[in-house]
Amino acid sequence: MNILLLLRVLGSILLVEGAAMVPALAIALVYGDGDALAFVWSILILAAIGVPLRLLCKPEQSNLRAREGFLAVALAWILLSVFGALPYLFSGVIPDFIDALFESVSGFTTTGASIMPVVEGQPHGVMFWRSFTHWIGGMGVLVLTLALLPQMSGRTSHLVRAESPGPTLSKIAPRMGDTAKILYIVYGVLTLMNWIALMLAGMDAYDAAIHALGTAGTGGFSNYAASVGHFNSAWIEGITTFFMIVFGVNFALYYKALTGGWREAIRNEELRWFLGIYIGVVLLITLNLMPDYEGNFLTALRYSSFQTASLMSTTGYATANFAFWPVTSKALLMLVMFTGGCAGSTAGGMKICRIGMLCKLGIREVRRTFQPRKVHTVRFEGKAVEESVLGQIAVYAFMCLLILVLGTVLVSLENPAAELNDLESSFTAALTCFNNVGPGLSNAIGPAGSYASYGPFAKLVLTFLMLAGRLEIFPMLALFHPAMWRK
Amino acid sequence: MNILLLLRVLGSILLVEGAAMVPALAIALVYGDGDALAFVWSILILAAIGVPLRLLCKPEQSNLRAREGFLAVALAWILLSVFGALPYLFSGVIPDFIDALFESVSGFTTTGASIMPVVEGQPHGVMFWRSFTHWIGGMGVLVLTLALLPQMSGRTSHLVRAESPGPTLSKIAPRMGDTAKILYIVYGVLTLMNWIALMLAGMDAYDAAIHALGTAGTGGFSNYAASVGHFNSAWIEGITTFFMIVFGVNFALYYKALTGGWREAIRNEELRWFLGIYIGVVLLITLNLMPDYEGNFLTALRYSSFQTASLMSTTGYATANFAFWPVTSKALLMLVMFTGGCAGSTAGGMKICRIGMLCKLGIREVRRTFQPRKVHTVRFEGKAVEESVLGQIAVYAFMCLLILVLGTVLVSLENPAAELNDLESSFTAALTCFNNVGPGLSNAIGPAGSYASYGPFAKLVLTFLMLAGRLEIFPMLALFHPAMWRK
Repeated sequence: MNILLLLRVLGSILLVEGAAMVPALAIALVYGDGDALAFVWSILILAAIGVPLRLLCKPEQSNLRAREGFLAVALAWILLSVFGALPYLFSGVIPDFIDALFESVSGFTTTGASIMPVVEGQPHGVMFWRSFTHWIGGMGVLVLTLALLPQMSGRTSHLVRAESPGPTLSKIAPRMGDTAKILYIVYGVLTLMNWIALMLAGMDAYDAAIHALGTAGTGGFSNYAASVGHFNSAWIEGITTFFMIVFGVNFALYYKALTGGWREAIRNEELRWFLGIYIGVVLLITLNLMPDYEGNFLTALRYSSFQTASLMSTTGYATANFAFWPVTSKALLMLVMFTGGCAGSTAGGMKICRIGMLCKLGIREVRRTFQPRKVHTVRFEGKAVEESVLGQIAVYAFMCLLILVLGTVLVSLENPAAELNDLESSFTAALTCFNNVGPGLSNAIGPAGSYASYGPFAKLVLTFLMLAGRLEIFPMLALFHPAMWRK
Repeated sequence: MNILLLLRVLGSILLVEGAAMVPALAIALVYGDGDALAFVWSILILAAIGVPLRLLCKPEQSNLRAREGFLAVALAWILLSVFGALPYLFSGVIPDFIDALFESVSGFTTTGASIMPVVEGQPHGVMFWRSFTHWIGGMGVLVLTLALLPQMSGRTSHLVRAESPGPTLSKIAPRMGDTAKILYIVYGVLTLMNWIALMLAGMDAYDAAIHALGTAGTGGFSNYAASVGHFNSAWIEGITTFFMIVFGVNFALYYKALTGGWREAIRNEELRWFLGIYIGVVLLITLNLMPDYEGNFLTALRYSSFQTASLMSTTGYATANFAFWPVTSKALLMLVMFTGGCAGSTAGGMKICRIGMLCKLGIREVRRTFQPRKVHTVRFEGKAVEESVLGQIAVYAFMCLLILVLGTVLVSLENPAAELNDLESSFTAALTCFNNVGPGLSNAIGPAGSYASYGPFAKLVLTFLMLAGRLEIFPMLALFHPAMWRK
């Protein structure tokens, strides 16, 4: 195992994390809420570990094999989360380590589940850092490291593959580092547009930044208890709905569209499945909600389009307490929480292309039972998909299901507080954390609730689920496979 | 399409169903509850349709192709259920057609979900018929038809394959008809042993017959509101637990054991997974339940071993109202409802061999991510499993999941009664019907509840789910595929 390279990669990531705390430090200094020192200490600690790792570890060759790549990704995300929790601890905003870790993992994995019972009136720097972790985690911290430190990109595609959402990696440029840079530029420009749009709609610069970062990373942390519902503005909701969908789409399509291939971009099959499922679910939920909104179609549409976009893009913002919506709407929300957004976006979940291929595969299997001798190929994006890929995707779906059921069992083990002591809370806690959404479907952990009442064991289980979901299970599960640790 | 043969097969099945009503008619005559005429009319109708179909339809060749086979199985089960509902309607025990159909499908599919709010004091003949449908449906009605009418077994293995639970069919004898006969003899002898054991434990002959039939078919209909809990006898519970496990095991293993291959039979990998999961879950639930039973390990073990056997074998008998058990226990029960019993048994669910292979496949996938160049084969029962089979099983799991989520949405559509208006009821109603278990995990549809309060649409959805689950989805889904109906 190429330990020196592994340590060098981890060192680089800690330095990038330290650099990522500088904007939060600046904001802390501007607002003077007394949280600046927390960032100074955190940055010093990151530098004290990161600089020696980068300077001292001089590997002879810069090739990471698959095993080292997966290990690097898993360790990178764990370290990132642990050190990302320091500002919460040092500032005293979250005094408990497990709570701070939960919040940090929830941030980086773009989940947005929170253990903070009170989010209003907290120091501006810490709250900015909390939302900024969404932005960093959304695109992937290794992608960011590659974009910033291009001399690292020897043969590190294993790294990026392990971290990128979706079954395939769209390589835009021949060099991995260039691809990373292009994706981050697209990401940055779209986030900026979202920020400006929110300010034009009446938010102040700080609130707009918090919500633009949360939307861009499809995270969902807000600095208001009522989330986006706090502003009660159709404009802000419309803008946020639009951008939640935008950030749920494969970023490579935007690059393609900008470089002249927009026809090809809109013909993208995954995009069509994404929008098709979105529109279908919005209409069904609207009809199902209408009686609750005095038969007013437009009001029901306003809430359903926002909430479906929020949960399908796995953002988790709320404008209504959907824990009290009718069962059909909740079941449909559960469905889109599971599907998630497109591969190559910042969204979590199973990813639409997997769902699309699995549906086609299901129809093929039905047909094959009564036409066993005919050859049926499954086509996606116009190309025949290899059988081995189809098989892998189907196994992936089964493993997700198994993790969810085991997660439900483990979350419920600790004899939780009365309001969490039901199957709906336990199951949707596991579901929403694993799919990096944030709020659950029961009131206790819904948009008006928080994860504060869970015990430390349940919080650690949920933390693991968030990481497993963000990294698409394999890097985290590989840590438990004995062959990973054999010479 | 070989329509004549199709009609002949359906005619034979109706005749077998008519013959199967004779024992119920005899019991109705003995007890004289006034339900004998209902059976006379039902048998006459079945004969009036079945006899001409068998006499008039003389197909030129007795080969059923895959498409016709699947169509025959789907139609056979639908017809069987419709005509099986006649005694409920004619006797006035269940006056509504959709309710009677629900009860009939629930019987034949060995689900055991009931819309009868009162089961005690009903006519003995009808209640016997209700439990007898479990016994017929457990092994498969086409298998029964083959066993009784061996001249039918041209190339009808498509039929049996479509109806038999599990991904593979264990052929015991070279001729399909002989295999069917052997399986039915094993089934009959085991049922008889169960009946005698229950009588020795103190049940009267009628109650013992009802509960032996319900156990053998892994159905779960009881003639007491408190189910097996009514008897409050550790002996009866122990016997029932034992036989629920026995009927959840592949019947081919008993034949193998009896013909001298008992070493091979106990070495069976599926059996080991089955017992391993069972024992593990029983222990976990026992520990989880202990605080509720004043720390008494044995009492907790008594309830958990019965209930886990009941839900894992997809029988559905109850000795405790597990709707009020702690969340961890309920989540574990949900897990075993999903896995079900072994292939080639009368149990429903995903089947243990599929779960075992999928778990091995999952571990293989984890390993493959960090050792991509190594060849990893998945072995089950000592043999390498083909990749195409593994892929199909994984797709099957995904399709089950999708059907469950869509089922949940559809079941909740009708704006159900307040006690059914939660995600737990809707989801576990879909889950328990699809996996042919019976009771759900919420109180309204739990062991103390019934499905009576659902509206007609939800009942039809659940009826479809029961049939889809019993026939392992493909025959029922094939009915909706356009290519099925093309020339």
